[in-house]
Amino acid sequence: MRKATARAGSNIAFIKYWGAADPALNLPLNGSISMTLAHVHTTTTVEWAPRGERPVDTIVLNGLPLAPAQAERLVAHLDRIRALAGVDHRARVVSVNNFPTGAGIASSASGFAALTVAACRALDLDLSPTQLSALARRGSGSACRSLFGGFVEWRQGSSDADSVAAPLFPPDHWELWDLVAVVDRQEKPVSSAQGHRLAHTSPLLEGRLRQVDGWLAQVREAIAQRDIHSLGTVAELDALAMHSVMMTSTPSLLYWQPGTVAVLHAARAWRAQGIPVYFTIDAGPNVHLLCPADQVSALRERLASVPGVEQVIASGPGPGPQLLDAHLF
Amino acid sequence: MRKATARAGSNIAFIKYWGAADPALNLPLNGSISMTLAHVHTTTTVEWAPRGERPVDTIVLNGLPLAPAQAERLVAHLDRIRALAGVDHRARVVSVNNFPTGAGIASSASGFAALTVAACRALDLDLSPTQLSALARRGSGSACRSLFGGFVEWRQGSSDADSVAAPLFPPDHWELWDLVAVVDRQEKPVSSAQGHRLAHTSPLLEGRLRQVDGWLAQVREAIAQRDIHSLGTVAELDALAMHSVMMTSTPSLLYWQPGTVAVLHAARAWRAQGIPVYFTIDAGPNVHLLCPADQVSALRERLASVPGVEQVIASGPGPGPQLLDAHLF
Repeated sequence: MRKATARAGSNIAFIKYWGAADPALNLPLNGSISMTLAHVHTTTTVEWAPRGERPVDTIVLNGLPLAPAQAERLVAHLDRIRALAGVDHRARVVSVNNFPTGAGIASSASGFAALTVAACRALDLDLSPTQLSALARRGSGSACRSLFGGFVEWRQGSSDADSVAAPLFPPDHWELWDLVAVVDRQEKPVSSAQGHRLAHTSPLLEGRLRQVDGWLAQVREAIAQRDIHSLGTVAELDALAMHSVMMTSTPSLLYWQPGTVAVLHAARAWRAQGIPVYFTIDAGPNVHLLCPADQVSALRERLASVPGVEQVIASGPGPGPQLLDAHLF
Repeated sequence: MRKATARAGSNIAFIKYWGAADPALNLPLNGSISMTLAHVHTTTTVEWAPRGERPVDTIVLNGLPLAPAQAERLVAHLDRIRALAGVDHRARVVSVNNFPTGAGIASSASGFAALTVAACRALDLDLSPTQLSALARRGSGSACRSLFGGFVEWRQGSSDADSVAAPLFPPDHWELWDLVAVVDRQEKPVSSAQGHRLAHTSPLLEGRLRQVDGWLAQVREAIAQRDIHSLGTVAELDALAMHSVMMTSTPSLLYWQPGTVAVLHAARAWRAQGIPVYFTIDAGPNVHLLCPADQVSALRERLASVPGVEQVIASGPGPGPQLLDAHLF
């Protein structure tokens, strides 16, 4: 019996992953760049049972056992890891998010990163961070970025081996913060995994994809220069372009809620007052505000008074996955 | 001294006009189709002063005299009409909307249609409806559609003379109604006239324009067949595509308010319950719900309970401009 516990940070993308070139492998239609978050994370323990001892994998998320249908993606990921290791043990997985699940905070990113690291470690699989990134990507595309700390780029690639993330700058390069304005805690009605398959139905997809290489270059440079204005301008534009693709897909995906729009207008109004703050929005209703560390406490207070904002979660850049313990028998 | 009063209905477009190929002439980047509204209208009286009697045009809108900067577009339009007639009289214009101005209900459409008809009539200019449509277009693009009643198409054209509207079906062809959910009565921060000049800065413009001819064909057929589902599906898609272009322009135009999003979700939820209702949104925060006449009273009641909805304005298809009186001296 082997057991390991890993913690992985969620990440917030400045240029988003939206649309799969290969939905089975989670190869993306475009590259993306994100920041791994210090204070928004998933902690996952994987305990492999002795061979034949358990009939099925059991998965407990935030204290609740998952029904078989909910566990399907996770079991499929465990299957990949079993195949790599050449074993057929079943696992008990206990996973805890320190933030609301399924509401546009990338719980699948931190979740699949932590699961991948813990499950592989507990089987003593000897994989490099890049190999772990590719493996995590199979579970959830954006999880490949959470395999590294700080500022991270997922290069599009064209195969399972080369569509992987790599670090651009370590977490201490820039004290950029992400304030998540939670306007809705409910699970989103259409998961990102389903949404990625709809992207090609939008007449606006191509227009976004044509811009992405230029936007990625601008974001790399903005991070290098620690230039919030350059970073934020393109992050807002790409987030709006991604949501444009979502809204004009068939069926139409409208992730925004009234509180979403209230925060977008608030952020722009504050910026007009001279505060360096920009927004981005993942596949969900919540809004992420990007700002320098010295603006966090003032913005947190302002955000709390925007109608529809239920909670504010703040985080700076964090490290890559950490092993919290590892018991090898 | 000549005086005339004209009333023109606003119109709601199913396929929108967004983006000018020639901003001076208001030649559009795409054709559009709308319904002229019976109960949402502008009534305008134009009284030409005897030659030399007034130093400037005076314009009173909804009871308030316009400051020179606000009156500029209207005076420019009077200049066009003076040039056509070969006169240099000044005018007194009194115009009243029976709906909130500047908040995504096309006040410029009904306003410039009524102004064009009244001003030309009061000068006894002998222009055909098509010539009046071209002239109204110079004042505000979508005004060219309000020169006709019922269901109207503005063919893109490529010159001042051929970029004009023409009727598709008369008002009694189909009792389709438009329920305007007013979520914000304020003047919008960026006018459509300014917005049309920004369309080309959006990376998503081309994707929308490539679809429009197909969408126009679908809308023509849907109106012919009185098919709310076919009409509504494409109207929603085009409205979302237009707002996508707006949001991703530089500067970004985000016309939506929290109430906008609340109504969009409500409309889709009601549709999921079997109610034939679809939305569209002009360049503003208010949402137009399209439905058959027999749904109006039930939907009006439902709309009133959606958070953020301040007022509901309902209208079926209406006639083209009407002369309410005409005094010729």
